[in-house]
Amino acid sequence: MDGDRFETRPTNPMNSTNSTNSTNPTNSMNSTKVSVQGLARFVTACFTSLGVSEEDARITADVLIEADRRGIASHGVARLKRYTDGIATGVILPETRYKVLRETANTLLVTGGNGLGQPVSHRAMRSVIDKAKEKDVALAAVRDSNHYGIAGYYAMMALTDGLIGLSASNAFPLVVPTFSKDALLGTNPIAVAAPTSGAMPFVLDMATSTVTRGKLEEYNRHGMPIPPVWGTDAHGSPTTDAAAVLKDVVARRGGGLLPLGGAGEETGGHKGFGLAMLVEILTGILSGGAFGPHVYGRPNAPANVCHFFAAIRIEAFIPLDEFTAALAAFVELLHGSEKAKGYDRSYVHGEKEFQRAKEQQEHVQIADKVVSEIERIGKGLGVTADF
Amino acid sequence: MDGDRFETRPTNPMNSTNSTNSTNPTNSMNSTKVSVQGLARFVTACFTSLGVSEEDARITADVLIEADRRGIASHGVARLKRYTDGIATGVILPETRYKVLRETANTLLVTGGNGLGQPVSHRAMRSVIDKAKEKDVALAAVRDSNHYGIAGYYAMMALTDGLIGLSASNAFPLVVPTFSKDALLGTNPIAVAAPTSGAMPFVLDMATSTVTRGKLEEYNRHGMPIPPVWGTDAHGSPTTDAAAVLKDVVARRGGGLLPLGGAGEETGGHKGFGLAMLVEILTGILSGGAFGPHVYGRPNAPANVCHFFAAIRIEAFIPLDEFTAALAAFVELLHGSEKAKGYDRSYVHGEKEFQRAKEQQEHVQIADKVVSEIERIGKGLGVTADF
Repeated sequence: MDGDRFETRPTNPMNSTNSTNSTNPTNSMNSTKVSVQGLARFVTACFTSLGVSEEDARITADVLIEADRRGIASHGVARLKRYTDGIATGVILPETRYKVLRETANTLLVTGGNGLGQPVSHRAMRSVIDKAKEKDVALAAVRDSNHYGIAGYYAMMALTDGLIGLSASNAFPLVVPTFSKDALLGTNPIAVAAPTSGAMPFVLDMATSTVTRGKLEEYNRHGMPIPPVWGTDAHGSPTTDAAAVLKDVVARRGGGLLPLGGAGEETGGHKGFGLAMLVEILTGILSGGAFGPHVYGRPNAPANVCHFFAAIRIEAFIPLDEFTAALAAFVELLHGSEKAKGYDRSYVHGEKEFQRAKEQQEHVQIADKVVSEIERIGKGLGVTADF
Repeated sequence: MDGDRFETRPTNPMNSTNSTNSTNPTNSMNSTKVSVQGLARFVTACFTSLGVSEEDARITADVLIEADRRGIASHGVARLKRYTDGIATGVILPETRYKVLRETANTLLVTGGNGLGQPVSHRAMRSVIDKAKEKDVALAAVRDSNHYGIAGYYAMMALTDGLIGLSASNAFPLVVPTFSKDALLGTNPIAVAAPTSGAMPFVLDMATSTVTRGKLEEYNRHGMPIPPVWGTDAHGSPTTDAAAVLKDVVARRGGGLLPLGGAGEETGGHKGFGLAMLVEILTGILSGGAFGPHVYGRPNAPANVCHFFAAIRIEAFIPLDEFTAALAAFVELLHGSEKAKGYDRSYVHGEKEFQRAKEQQEHVQIADKVVSEIERIGKGLGVTADF
């Protein structure tokens, strides 16, 4: 066990992309500093013990731990149980039966064979990158997959090759369309990464709902009221009661998370709804897979999550150094801009996560209760938690 | 003059995409039923009288009138003055010096030569469609252009060829980045069109700000307070005073429209900001053109608006009829879904506009003051308003 394990300090789990506002609940949860290498070895071993290949297990561990490194704890090793349970119940097959169903010079249709979303997506994005390097732009639609972790991971894979990377996925139906009562859409994230000549790349990684379920869970844990643009009750009316939203949406009694923009059209909720639809079209519809309420449509059956990946070769348009310099100049301009009253700085997309990941190169802060949980999972699988 | 000219009836100019909420100001503005053919002839003649070629004038007229047909009056012939003024002041060149700067099998870099945005965009999208039909996916980045009208027009051009169409543009800086004081981004629309086997296609056409300037102008005209997620005052603080936002942003004293999601991060404003950045990256940065505050950066100089166009051949992935049937089934499912309390129907994207355009095939309702204005413009150019 790494000595750092015992250097416990309080952290704020709200400290991710969505969370620099001042109304966040105070968080006194303790956490533990864990070796990235040790944690990766442990998570990989958990997956291989379930029949996942060494390579696929390593990719999955890397995607999960990268989320923790970037401060997106909701998508990190805290999710390990969902994946190991998925394999145990047969929703996720341990062996990745990745298969290209149709291929052209610029496109790829893939079935993930109900394997882990991470290795399926990693392989599809790798192919998209290779094709885009040759042919300037490439797209992949993937069906029969599972939750793939942070969308930004795959978009960022394109950065080192002078490409713009894009990734999107449909997801468990938690989001209510404008004027509807029931959750019929996923939180359907979109991620786009673009290189800059500055300190960090541009990485937009956003759910198309106002917030994710994890955010409601945090507020619920602290008994805090939620803003009325986050969720609706069982009648489909905006509510400030996080517990009610979570209870009703899981029991499929109605209500759920609201699209970016909130309820109705006055505050732009139909636009968030439209972006979620766009993701469904590029993932579930274009791949011939599951969409909307059909994703995770039956309990203990394949989830049929679908993804979309794209890459654009910048030099098909302008020299790479001109692109990266212009984007860095834009970021500088935004950083140097006058701030709104009450604020002394602003951020560009991916900036907070980039800083956090830089601080957490070799060690990552994990909530104590997550450490206990994954230790317990390891024990059940005969894997020692030696991180 | 068409006899229908005198069949005046009141219409509600708020009756476009953003506006089925109940808090809209009542509008008593009168309007006139005008022949589409006559109006097209008139607008075309206005442009040719200024030195625009017959073909380019016809395209520009078609894009403007299509907006009116679809009920998006803010982007219709009400804008004629901005274009004719643009040509008169030399901001827009009448001759379209469209030039392909770089081309591959799948991509296109274009300069619009500071011509009218509509013929430049029409030509670029046409090339993208031709390439996508051959090579499954194609992209164009366009620089040195001007306002191109409704983004959805170009996305919809792809529909008849079994393609998904996409269009985006940067624009006059009216939108404030999260935590910033000044407007440094355009309303940067994104449009995506996808075919269905149902009655109408899916057409998402949205500004990445919560609302457009036209919406604030409407509320201002009626002395109505605006929701606090629409705009900020000169200090960068959310306000309900439409007049103040409009006055300060135009005088560049600070404040402006808010990104989709509103101010700060709690309600998701950083996501709307991110989408606006994504548009700047695909348009101004990727084309080597102007971005953010540099668009319309100097008075009476070229606006340097930039666009992005894309098309995806559906059959590179799955048979077209499977795609259109699945998307139609999804739309049916949404239409048939239980509604939120207080609502009896819901809409998918492009539905209201499709209905309105169907009602306005041959005649289109134009506000009386717009009719007077364009008649006045025609008179100045020696063009008779015989619509």
